[in-house]
Amino acid sequence: MNTDQFRQFGKAAVDYIADYFDSIKNRPVFHSVHPGYLQELIPAEPPRRGDLWKDVLQDVDRVIMPGITHWHSPNFHAYFSAANSFPAIVGEMMGAGFTSIGINWMASPAYTELEVAMMNWLGKLLHLPEHFLNCSDGPGGGVIQAYKTYFQGSASETTLLCLLAAKEKKVRDLKALNPDLNDTEIKTKLVAYSSDQSNSSVERAGLLGSVPMRLIPADEDGKFPANKLLEAMRKDRAQGLIPCYVVACLGTTPTCAFDDLTELGPICNQENVWLHVDAAYAGAAFSCPEYRYLMEGVEYADSFNFSPHKWMLVNFDCSAMWVRNARFLTDAFQVDRIYLKSKQLTSIPEYRHWRIPLGGKFRALKLWFVLRIYGVEGIQNYIRHQVALAKYFEQLVVDDSRFELCCSNMGLVCFQLRGDNELTEILFEKIIENRNIFVLSGYFNGKYVIRFSICSQLTERCDIDNAWQEIVSQAKFVLRHHGGLR
Amino acid sequence: MNTDQFRQFGKAAVDYIADYFDSIKNRPVFHSVHPGYLQELIPAEPPRRGDLWKDVLQDVDRVIMPGITHWHSPNFHAYFSAANSFPAIVGEMMGAGFTSIGINWMASPAYTELEVAMMNWLGKLLHLPEHFLNCSDGPGGGVIQAYKTYFQGSASETTLLCLLAAKEKKVRDLKALNPDLNDTEIKTKLVAYSSDQSNSSVERAGLLGSVPMRLIPADEDGKFPANKLLEAMRKDRAQGLIPCYVVACLGTTPTCAFDDLTELGPICNQENVWLHVDAAYAGAAFSCPEYRYLMEGVEYADSFNFSPHKWMLVNFDCSAMWVRNARFLTDAFQVDRIYLKSKQLTSIPEYRHWRIPLGGKFRALKLWFVLRIYGVEGIQNYIRHQVALAKYFEQLVVDDSRFELCCSNMGLVCFQLRGDNELTEILFEKIIENRNIFVLSGYFNGKYVIRFSICSQLTERCDIDNAWQEIVSQAKFVLRHHGGLR
Repeated sequence: MNTDQFRQFGKAAVDYIADYFDSIKNRPVFHSVHPGYLQELIPAEPPRRGDLWKDVLQDVDRVIMPGITHWHSPNFHAYFSAANSFPAIVGEMMGAGFTSIGINWMASPAYTELEVAMMNWLGKLLHLPEHFLNCSDGPGGGVIQAYKTYFQGSASETTLLCLLAAKEKKVRDLKALNPDLNDTEIKTKLVAYSSDQSNSSVERAGLLGSVPMRLIPADEDGKFPANKLLEAMRKDRAQGLIPCYVVACLGTTPTCAFDDLTELGPICNQENVWLHVDAAYAGAAFSCPEYRYLMEGVEYADSFNFSPHKWMLVNFDCSAMWVRNARFLTDAFQVDRIYLKSKQLTSIPEYRHWRIPLGGKFRALKLWFVLRIYGVEGIQNYIRHQVALAKYFEQLVVDDSRFELCCSNMGLVCFQLRGDNELTEILFEKIIENRNIFVLSGYFNGKYVIRFSICSQLTERCDIDNAWQEIVSQAKFVLRHHGGLR
Repeated sequence: MNTDQFRQFGKAAVDYIADYFDSIKNRPVFHSVHPGYLQELIPAEPPRRGDLWKDVLQDVDRVIMPGITHWHSPNFHAYFSAANSFPAIVGEMMGAGFTSIGINWMASPAYTELEVAMMNWLGKLLHLPEHFLNCSDGPGGGVIQAYKTYFQGSASETTLLCLLAAKEKKVRDLKALNPDLNDTEIKTKLVAYSSDQSNSSVERAGLLGSVPMRLIPADEDGKFPANKLLEAMRKDRAQGLIPCYVVACLGTTPTCAFDDLTELGPICNQENVWLHVDAAYAGAAFSCPEYRYLMEGVEYADSFNFSPHKWMLVNFDCSAMWVRNARFLTDAFQVDRIYLKSKQLTSIPEYRHWRIPLGGKFRALKLWFVLRIYGVEGIQNYIRHQVALAKYFEQLVVDDSRFELCCSNMGLVCFQLRGDNELTEILFEKIIENRNIFVLSGYFNGKYVIRFSICSQLTERCDIDNAWQEIVSQAKFVLRHHGGLR
């Protein structure tokens, strides 16, 4: 394909995406396919000779589109929002166009330097403590992590990475006190903690990092109870185990609850345990001053992450992480070979020692595009608008005596039909069967709840009204036919 | 930004990329900046109000372009090729446009199903053994891994993932024989093996997975010596340790050497040790029948990976992995929570259990675009053309008595100035200082070599001639001024 053909193909693809968004309100939010549908639509082998781009684009419509669940439909209220914006889409394409690989500064200086600058911008946007920023004097700094689990609210690589760094740090700390100790002996005794409301990726990080992850039952607000953490640590210490890592959540996956860092933080600091703060979804809200009280105590943390690809308009994937002391990361992962060596630059971080993959994509570019084109106010307006829509929905629930509001935080509202859990279960199934809106369900304090999340940028009050109408109309049916369950 | 503005911005960006490629021959391959350059060009804070897209696009030219090392310049001969093609760029943009997250089949069926289909296409393109394919009857299958280290020739996540699966498998195997054994006890005794020519990410996988990775010295051809592997395993067993994992390379990072699977494979199978084959760069060559003899013995492998984002025209990142038995992966990583549950589909893999991140990007889309628009023949022609250019360069080296050819495989040629290593060191420094071509250097069998790699799709014979002229002209200078070193 030459550049002339690319100009045609690329522009046709831009129009395809624009047409898609222009028409998304009229598309059913759910896909319309059965398992295995795609294998019936395409050949079992790659073509011998190349096809025309026009045919391929038509096949996107024929083969792909029917199997897409429309996450950006205004009727999509499942999971959390998956960020998407036009500036980020263009940024993604341009990053692909340059395709350098950010192995080190030399391999493409703009990669490293834009990442440093954007992590400073982001940190300032969120009002993170100065010591986390690259532009501070200390050993702290921010980095875009290369991939993230998506679902839900959490960033598995970051959790794992910090766990591994915490492990190494603990081994060093203990060996400094007692040089006769042996690494393996220490490592087999380490334990980590989080609440049972943390993302499944936290549990997985424990599995992958070979450190048992204690999942402490949350309190009735879905928060990590500090006294239970202390209790668990003391019990473990009494058995000769060594606490080394705690994951707190600002915005948990099931209910977007905020753990209290002013309580958890001092315990971790006192016990010399690494505190990682996972604000994957809700972190974007700290761009608004009125929500910053929810991260009070963040200054106790050793590491902090949030994912602009969730709620800050940067397409998947882009997850931001800051550490108080980057040396603990680089000490844990530095593996240098001759082909990676380049002259050491004192002022510029060598990001390859900050993450698991050695090279990185140009993720900072799409982040730059979004921050430039939206501006601070644009991002604040976006967050506030989404929270306002959730509040509007919350009020509809509260105003209807058939329903009970279970929790509501940021863009997420959980509710149930009053009465037996089974009623809500049937309601949920009816809603999904009817396919007009996409919501999820879950349990909260033993209650089966419907989890309604404001996701799409295109969602407006009228869409909330329609969604509520759909819920109420299914609820009426359920109460009529199964009301005996009450 | 509304869809009209996106149409304008997107198309201007397509033109920017096309103009970039039209002009890349005339750009110096190296960037022209000093460390810290970018912080001088942009403000320290994000803008309060949003900027116009036109200003942002202009700033790409002003701020980013000077700091880009042009990996797709025909004068770029460093590292290995980093794939880039127009179909893949468009695929990347369209994938960003849809931004669903492939958490499970339900969340967007097209994601999972196109990935299944593309892994079948790719496996057939490479003529991998049937048991690796999703379309086979057995428990094997292929998956696109979500991120990759780039440099060099290897795919760190895949290596780590298979190491972790091998660990779990070994624990289960041993406990099946002796149920009294304890997991931790077994795990602390596990050891893994690779050659010292394997990628640094293999060593790193050992670090991350807490399994010592023995790096066996390669033979003089850069290959993993099977007898030394057996020796090392026996020595370890004699000390009560348990061999569990071997990484063999088809196309090593330093010299693109091919380990002999017909020798390593039977040993691994006999010793019940997981054999992982890393063909990250060179795997693409198996699309051509004439190179398939180099993967003879691949049927002994438990897992195999190669990265289309290196040498198969799919932009970073896209790394393909196949396993003989997917159950060993899913058993190791399955963490199910209620929000992840969906009805089990027997015929369709739940890919979230196949990789570390739970969600995935729509990477299969760009792969589909590339395979469709190039076709099998287009890919074969591309590989053959690149190898022919390397052969052409090799001949220039061989025909000049001042130089010695050290090794030449696929698109990579390593050579030195005859005489003391220091001569080649000076030559390398002169070439880099002069900034006309970008090459790397390294050691091979104690010889300091220049590593010349065919990278860009735009490279033609005349560019090879120019590169050679540059090398010869610098060599003349070196021999004139430092010839006494000979």
